Amino acid sequence: MSASVKSNTGNFFEDFRPGQTLVHATPQTLTEGDVALYRALTGGRYAQYSSAEFAKAAGLPGLCIDPLHAFHVVFGKTVPDVSLNAVANLGYADGRFLRPVMPGDTLRAVSEVIGRKENSTGRTGVVWVRTTGLNQREEEVLSYVRWVMVNKRDPETPSAETVVPELREAVPALALAGYPAMKEWDFAASGSRHVLEDYEIGERINHVDGMTVQEAEHQTATRLYQNTAKVHFDFHGQKQSRFGKRLVYGGVVISIARSLAFNGLGNAGQILAINGGTHAGPLFAWDTIYAWSEVLDKAELSETCGALRLRLVAVKDTDPGAFAWKDSAGKYDPAVLLDFDYWAAIPRAR
Amino acid sequence: MSASVKSNTGNFFEDFRPGQTLVHATPQTLTEGDVALYRALTGGRYAQYSSAEFAKAAGLPGLCIDPLHAFHVVFGKTVPDVSLNAVANLGYADGRFLRPVMPGDTLRAVSEVIGRKENSTGRTGVVWVRTTGLNQREEEVLSYVRWVMVNKRDPETPSAETVVPELREAVPALALAGYPAMKEWDFAASGSRHVLEDYEIGERINHVDGMTVQEAEHQTATRLYQNTAKVHFDFHGQKQSRFGKRLVYGGVVISIARSLAFNGLGNAGQILAINGGTHAGPLFAWDTIYAWSEVLDKAELSETCGALRLRLVAVKDTDPGAFAWKDSAGKYDPAVLLDFDYWAAIPRAR
Amino acid sequence: MSASVKSNTGNFFEDFRPGQTLVHATPQTLTEGDVALYRALTGGRYAQYSSAEFAKAAGLPGLCIDPLHAFHVVFGKTVPDVSLNAVANLGYADGRFLRPVMPGDTLRAVSEVIGRKENSTGRTGVVWVRTTGLNQREEEVLSYVRWVMVNKRDPETPSAETVVPELREAVPALALAGYPAMKEWDFAASGSRHVLEDYEIGERINHVDGMTVQEAEHQTATRLYQNTAKVHFDFHGQKQSRFGKRLVYGGVVISIARSLAFNGLGNAGQILAINGGTHAGPLFAWDTIYAWSEVLDKAELSETCGALRLRLVAVKDTDPGAFAWKDSAGKYDPAVLLDFDYWAAIPRAR
Repeated sequence: MSASVKSNTGNFFEDFRPGQTLVHATPQTLTEGDVALYRALTGGRYAQYSSAEFAKAAGLPGLCIDPLHAFHVVFGKTVPDVSLNAVANLGYADGRFLRPVMPGDTLRAVSEVIGRKENSTGRTGVVWVRTTGLNQREEEVLSYVRWVMVNKRDPETPSAETVVPELREAVPALALAGYPAMKEWDFAASGSRHVLEDYEIGERINHVDGMTVQEAEHQTATRLYQNTAKVHFDFHGQKQSRFGKRLVYGGVVISIARSLAFNGLGNAGQILAINGGTHAGPLFAWDTIYAWSEVLDKAELSETCGALRLRLVAVKDTDPGAFAWKDSAGKYDPAVLLDFDYWAAIPRAR
Repeated sequence: MSASVKSNTGNFFEDFRPGQTLVHATPQTLTEGDVALYRALTGGRYAQYSSAEFAKAAGLPGLCIDPLHAFHVVFGKTVPDVSLNAVANLGYADGRFLRPVMPGDTLRAVSEVIGRKENSTGRTGVVWVRTTGLNQREEEVLSYVRWVMVNKRDPETPSAETVVPELREAVPALALAGYPAMKEWDFAASGSRHVLEDYEIGERINHVDGMTVQEAEHQTATRLYQNTAKVHFDFHGQKQSRFGKRLVYGGVVISIARSLAFNGLGNAGQILAINGGTHAGPLFAWDTIYAWSEVLDKAELSETCGALRLRLVAVKDTDPGAFAWKDSAGKYDPAVLLDFDYWAAIPRAR
Repeated sequence: MSASVKSNTGNFFEDFRPGQTLVHATPQTLTEGDVALYRALTGGRYAQYSSAEFAKAAGLPGLCIDPLHAFHVVFGKTVPDVSLNAVANLGYADGRFLRPVMPGDTLRAVSEVIGRKENSTGRTGVVWVRTTGLNQREEEVLSYVRWVMVNKRDPETPSAETVVPELREAVPALALAGYPAMKEWDFAASGSRHVLEDYEIGERINHVDGMTVQEAEHQTATRLYQNTAKVHFDFHGQKQSRFGKRLVYGGVVISIARSLAFNGLGNAGQILAINGGTHAGPLFAWDTIYAWSEVLDKAELSETCGALRLRLVAVKDTDPGAFAWKDSAGKYDPAVLLDFDYWAAIPRAR
């Protein structure tokens, strides 16, 4: 009997060519079951993703899939093609949420390679892709750039031409889309009385609460998104790794930190754009996530709806009221897990 | 940069005034996804909450949300306003389930402060609230009283007038509502042949089976109900607490004990009222819950439907056949987790 | 106060008589919530069970319940009547999936006792049952034979007549039902380019990936199927058992191994028949499951759809590329968890 090679070995640095299109498997239909699981795994409480009635009154079509949930699903699809041989997930940029995703919608993901640059060691290189999430009507629901460090298949392969894409530092407020009218907003139901005008640029918010992550929780969440990166699931294999254990998917950290941010940002539940993100440190089971935010910018989008540009910082096993971030040399405090820069919609004063 | 105080610090004893109304955030739409998760987390098997066909034949509108599930959701909403600074959850009384909650319904919670009494130490006080769960049509679906011991903000605050509400010891059978016709009842499908007439007042039932609770399970259940009490989630913070670890939400104990009670009370799946409840001891991850019941009373509600008043006792890490409860001085056996007094609907002999 | 015996003590060997029909409690309605949980707990990615659009294009009625999921639900119902007093689950045979199960369908289970044979010790015996899963329209959706070793109530009971059923070694290809047209098949979306014609009899496939199982995960999955066997849930009770801990339900192993098999069998997502299955070794929490497959047979079912007969071997904590199976004496390698023989539908070359 012969052993075949029908399993996926992933793409190496040499396989990525600027202009190339990657059509990712497998499309996924999201339902009310996914919504309930996402809430149960992240602790989400933002009113427009909790109550169908609140959502409709706020101008959304109903109880939508949380944009971050949709992001994780689209991201998960790209893993087998983009990051199976990745050494590190380096960053995100220019992420925009273009259309609501409703229960019943099916998401698929397509990526375009937009850059590559071999590292000086000759063993790895950086690859940039723009990934787009599409629904069953072929409408774009979200789009973002990420870049990863990927192993070369063979260090001897001659270096290819370097292409480094130009990326904007932040999505401009004028490019924000998909925000609702927010003409009606029940501030008792939302759990927060704070509107756009109450926040000041530079203001820091301590989100107080903590959430400890167990192996069963991050594995279940990561499977919900069909993200198959083996570092998250294979304890036996990870015993030989640098950390000796499973690593929690960074998207789990983003979602839990965003849920914790309810306490202080209760009306800013809808993410409109991701300006950038860095996973500054690893999270493991039994670690406790805390979070704080800083207001980076503000924008008026309509008479009734505004946007806050926020830096969300997740820290582990430490008081978030210490606002741990970077030292004077620009190096992250060891407690920092995540530095996430995004825009969220928020109602204006009325 | 300034640190703001936009996060919720909760109410202290001084903040509660009899007659005051608390409108709780955030309304929550319950779906088939919540139903599946509730079953997967509690092990529920009662036929009318397992099969839509069985439910309809029994006279229910379809596969409803389990009343205890609805109770936990409504309870969860009250935590940020009622018990964020609570020292202890002291009891429940006069809980009634008034209308079925269907997938697609949105629940919100409103509480009225009905009593308060400062403790002699001057550091804490007892607060009584009546909480009502409402659906999106503003119909009352459930209502109950609970009382909690809450910290004072400042021990120096002068004592306020004491108001202690009168509470009935049990919901009278005539006040039970929302029970179904039960004209049809498939005893093979329900898994039990026992009807109202088969149970005797004073009879004790050993539910035999045990269920061990893991951290990931109780956290996931408690997030499903949007209950945010930090003792359930923040392992890092709880290391400094009395127990040194996370405490399982008492509602998790109630639901698992009720699921275990299927083995002996298979036809008594629908709770109609909560007469009282005491969380006699704490549950932690890795503890195993067992349960036994005692028949306290019986009532005939219609030609085909009756009700059992039951005491459900959950114990941990011990044989439920020993029927551990109280000693002669009225003190709970250390194994007892829960003493829960309720009415459940059950078919009558036919 | 008296202690009653209203709880289920299960059937013993003496209670099973050939020809006897067992109507199992409790029927269960499966919804999109169950679909999401099954995916989140098993990591399923086969396109026809992930995307409603893909499913319809392939000729299925929509996003169906995974046949293995339906199997576990039907199996779970039989536990209180068939295997509560079982010593071992010995095998499966002649399992066929006859109709799709859709969200909203309610499954119930009925078994017929088709054989029994007392063991020479006089303490146990083997019982064979054919179990049928029916939907709410009383249509058969699946059917299989399993046999278990069951304790006798009393070793002194005289032996009854031995009846051993004749079982076919495998479901013949001509008896396979319920396969879809597969006229359309999007090979980019499915994540695999391999069709029936690409697989050779005798070929072995290393599925590479590993999945570690936690207590919370297998308990949650097993409750989702309403399987109540106490060995999976009662840690306190299991401390006294042979293994000293909870045992993972074998169906959890089957489903996770099948999900891992996506990597190499991405187009063979739909099980049509179970020819046989052996749980060769126990799985415990913290063990990592890996899997490999061998192609046992091939069949052409229509112009566009074929079937692979596959042996799926799950191993624990070892490289699946070693293809651990049996030694020359026919004894399973200690790493082997599962030896599972089944037919799966797969598109033909086009």
